[in-house]
Amino acid sequence: MGSLLQRRQYLLILLCFFVFLWESRTAESRTLYYRWEVKSELKSPDCFKKLTLTINGRSPGPTIYAHQGDTVIVELKNSFVTENVAIHWHGIRQIGTPWSDGTEGVTQCPVLPGETFKYQFVVDRPGTYLYHAHYGMQREDGLYGSIVVWLPEGQTEPFAYDHDRNLILTDWYHKSSHEHSAGLAAPGSAFNWVGEPDSLLIQGRGRFNCSLGASATCNSSSPDCVLYPITVVPGRTYRLRVSSLTSLSALSFQIEGHTMTVVEADGHYVEPFQVSNLFIYSGETYSVLIKADQNPSRNYWITTNVVSRNSTTPLGLAIFNYYPNHQRKFPPTTPPAGPAWNAVAPRLAQSHAIKARQGFIHPPPKAADKVIVLLNTQNTVNGRRRWSLNNVSFNMPHTPYLIALKNNLLHTFSQAKPPTGYDFKNYNIFDPPPNPEATVSDAIYRLDFNSTVDIILQNANMMALNTSETHPWHLHGHDFWVLGYGEGKFDMFKDPSKYNLVNPIMKNTVPLHPFGWTALRFVADNPGVWAFHCHIDAHFFMGMGVVFEEGIEKVQKLPTSIMGCGESKRFIRP
Amino acid sequence: MGSLLQRRQYLLILLCFFVFLWESRTAESRTLYYRWEVKSELKSPDCFKKLTLTINGRSPGPTIYAHQGDTVIVELKNSFVTENVAIHWHGIRQIGTPWSDGTEGVTQCPVLPGETFKYQFVVDRPGTYLYHAHYGMQREDGLYGSIVVWLPEGQTEPFAYDHDRNLILTDWYHKSSHEHSAGLAAPGSAFNWVGEPDSLLIQGRGRFNCSLGASATCNSSSPDCVLYPITVVPGRTYRLRVSSLTSLSALSFQIEGHTMTVVEADGHYVEPFQVSNLFIYSGETYSVLIKADQNPSRNYWITTNVVSRNSTTPLGLAIFNYYPNHQRKFPPTTPPAGPAWNAVAPRLAQSHAIKARQGFIHPPPKAADKVIVLLNTQNTVNGRRRWSLNNVSFNMPHTPYLIALKNNLLHTFSQAKPPTGYDFKNYNIFDPPPNPEATVSDAIYRLDFNSTVDIILQNANMMALNTSETHPWHLHGHDFWVLGYGEGKFDMFKDPSKYNLVNPIMKNTVPLHPFGWTALRFVADNPGVWAFHCHIDAHFFMGMGVVFEEGIEKVQKLPTSIMGCGESKRFIRP
Repeated sequence: MGSLLQRRQYLLILLCFFVFLWESRTAESRTLYYRWEVKSELKSPDCFKKLTLTINGRSPGPTIYAHQGDTVIVELKNSFVTENVAIHWHGIRQIGTPWSDGTEGVTQCPVLPGETFKYQFVVDRPGTYLYHAHYGMQREDGLYGSIVVWLPEGQTEPFAYDHDRNLILTDWYHKSSHEHSAGLAAPGSAFNWVGEPDSLLIQGRGRFNCSLGASATCNSSSPDCVLYPITVVPGRTYRLRVSSLTSLSALSFQIEGHTMTVVEADGHYVEPFQVSNLFIYSGETYSVLIKADQNPSRNYWITTNVVSRNSTTPLGLAIFNYYPNHQRKFPPTTPPAGPAWNAVAPRLAQSHAIKARQGFIHPPPKAADKVIVLLNTQNTVNGRRRWSLNNVSFNMPHTPYLIALKNNLLHTFSQAKPPTGYDFKNYNIFDPPPNPEATVSDAIYRLDFNSTVDIILQNANMMALNTSETHPWHLHGHDFWVLGYGEGKFDMFKDPSKYNLVNPIMKNTVPLHPFGWTALRFVADNPGVWAFHCHIDAHFFMGMGVVFEEGIEKVQKLPTSIMGCGESKRFIRP
Repeated sequence: MGSLLQRRQYLLILLCFFVFLWESRTAESRTLYYRWEVKSELKSPDCFKKLTLTINGRSPGPTIYAHQGDTVIVELKNSFVTENVAIHWHGIRQIGTPWSDGTEGVTQCPVLPGETFKYQFVVDRPGTYLYHAHYGMQREDGLYGSIVVWLPEGQTEPFAYDHDRNLILTDWYHKSSHEHSAGLAAPGSAFNWVGEPDSLLIQGRGRFNCSLGASATCNSSSPDCVLYPITVVPGRTYRLRVSSLTSLSALSFQIEGHTMTVVEADGHYVEPFQVSNLFIYSGETYSVLIKADQNPSRNYWITTNVVSRNSTTPLGLAIFNYYPNHQRKFPPTTPPAGPAWNAVAPRLAQSHAIKARQGFIHPPPKAADKVIVLLNTQNTVNGRRRWSLNNVSFNMPHTPYLIALKNNLLHTFSQAKPPTGYDFKNYNIFDPPPNPEATVSDAIYRLDFNSTVDIILQNANMMALNTSETHPWHLHGHDFWVLGYGEGKFDMFKDPSKYNLVNPIMKNTVPLHPFGWTALRFVADNPGVWAFHCHIDAHFFMGMGVVFEEGIEKVQKLPTSIMGCGESKRFIRP
């Protein structure tokens, strides 16, 4: 009897403890629940009517606003007619939830029309992140948006501002991504490539010149293409989150007459520095502080312009609107043209300038356990234009790696070890590839769990003489330390001594400049399978990526919702 | 010991017997094995470059030539980037193989990119059949082709000809089916509908007038748009198989200066009759005999023109090429304009003229066990334009019916009984619908196995005053007897007495003429689930169809290859 009472008391205490745990948990973190529906709809983001992929009717989709530690649940309903979908949460490391990374072919099967897929993950760090389709080239058709993660209530940033605003920069084609991918996959694709973007969009809006002859489908008075305004109150300071999800273009971003102080990059605090224009590459996010300290009787242009390519695409425009001027009132000035497209030095200088903020430095491990050098080249495979790393062009398999590895379906992809370097001695990075024919492979890099890995991205000349493009490289599942950038060929014996091991910034996306190199370090401590690729949609589609596996044995039981394609179709037992 | 010997002898005799069976089987019927790859490629079928869905690089895809009794196996590889696919074998009844009917949502889950799906079926009757995508509106983008089934070797047709030729007629849009379906699904879709086709194609080729202002994407010297030639030797007789897979258009087909004798319709022999032009509706196939008996020193136009709609689409053209004139030599004449679009009487007359050929009559059952009257109306649902039957607009579920019914997943679709009639007394078919708002439903008609079912298709006025379109209705899994056509409102008490029960033709597709009715009879003797729908892609997409189930308990174990979507995703057990 006494024993029973004791047991009851014990259970009661245990119950109270759990209630307390639950309460304290809910006090700190919430679960944010979203219901999204993706559709293909006719929209006119730059006044030209085009089939646009929308979320709940919008492109960009709804911004996710969360606090650090919150759990985000997105129930994604695919309402396309014949197309599948998958959404990647760009910059979210998916610790413990590698199946929610949304990378079709790597972490999940695609979501079929009519089906609803549940993404669930924790946003464990404050900062500016993104989401976008990660299937075929759907991102290019408008399926993207922002994730803003604030500090927990009561905590403050190490910089002061009055208001928080958000802009996503993109480029935009009037041809569909279906047309692009068909053109890229065709033989002689160099000649089928549709060329430069038609417009640059700021927060999903731009202005194509309808007088260029597409009257039936271009309507300059469409409400879809009213230039996006950022309204500011004179004297106040704004934190502007600026992200790029361009398909192709490297951009310079500027606000006419205003300097910007860079304070955050990819979710990490930056030792503040001022710029008059911000260079930004696809997949990057920044926060800049701007004081509304100019003549308040007028509006100012917000502009983007293409750099690194000699592009014919006109400036992207938005309005920096001083209250109480009308939001739609064009500034009296000509929009600033931005820096020269081919000036690499200022871009490299900005890359060098981005360091971790004092007091928020995460020092990197002193040395790497493994070094992988990736020579970035343009190539051909069977008469088709491709991109390769160490002469291997990536090909996505149809059984996602995460499923294949957890379920021992090792026959579904090559078990070869992809090359960790190239012929450093003899390869001239300033010449077109002497042997342009590349190998296609779906082999992956299998990393030792918790090992420290250095990646040296080495740029080179493309197929045409004297050309080398900027490639923004994005790593899933991790942040990496940016150890350094350099010009020319990376020297394994000399250049590592110049690495910044003191205050390197951590990022998830980093540019590889023309004819240059970029060195990164990360710790392979996140069990799962992770893509690392050029964030230019078309380049990844043409093979410019690799995949890392680490700690697969530590990954928990996979949800069956990610299965159903490739060899995992054999798991169907009615 | 003696017993063992006897057993061995017995087994030997049994083995010989099976070898004999196998031999006799292979002597009669073969297995035809095809490997197809579907892709999305830039093609210029009418000189205007458009993303076209191809099979092994071609649109139309390869023609399947088989003999009656052959087994056809098509291993279909989906090489689209983000789109699924399913292919329907139009006119093949799929007796014993209902899972090979290729109707996404009804008989299978769609086939994912990168996957290979095996269709296997017996072509059990000679005649002219078709195949085409049956998913979303993909057919419209070029995914279609012909199936020609010959009599077994040694047997002859009841009509004589020297050569066998084949033509598929289509209409063609420069906008993609994605744009169409997005337009149709949008609110106020009546205004978003992209209008008349840009071209009519004959065997996948036509000629758009490039001077109409699309210079960058229109190239009148593209080899893709060389007019298709049918080369004939003077004096010989040709069996020309003419099929229509238009998205929208009812057509008149003619060969300048030549009369045609109609001898086959949808795989059934027709009591021969002559026409100068053949009216043909989407989903129909005909064989006509043509004697090359005209002046052989020149070529002649083959033309198609739109009827039943006041269309702006120019004539479709091909060349009836008298050997040895050059195949590309245009005839010296102006192509014949064809009959007036709005003359219903000659079309009705042709419908009446098509009877089963003497000696090949399959008499229908004398009476029906069940009569279903389907009032065809244009409607609205939540501000969107739809089509309905008895005010119910069909909505495809995402768990295919065949899987749902065999696996008792009855919660995946409405278990209501759809209406078998409408308010016959009070409904005025010459007025727009008084209550245009329709109900959307995925309920199906469950038929008693082996019962005889009559379907009365009743046309009516559309949403606009004084308009009624032609709807070609196609039944999967069966042929039906065409009991009669009439003008105005079908009278259940008087009109059945006029049914042709003597020599009705059997078909799988039949027109419902403007403001008229069409009566069909079929026997529900094919275990499975079968769609019955308007063959205009856009109309079915907007709800103009129903589904029949019969003998589901007699369907053999379903292949798991058709599963993996909707609720059948729950069958995944790793």
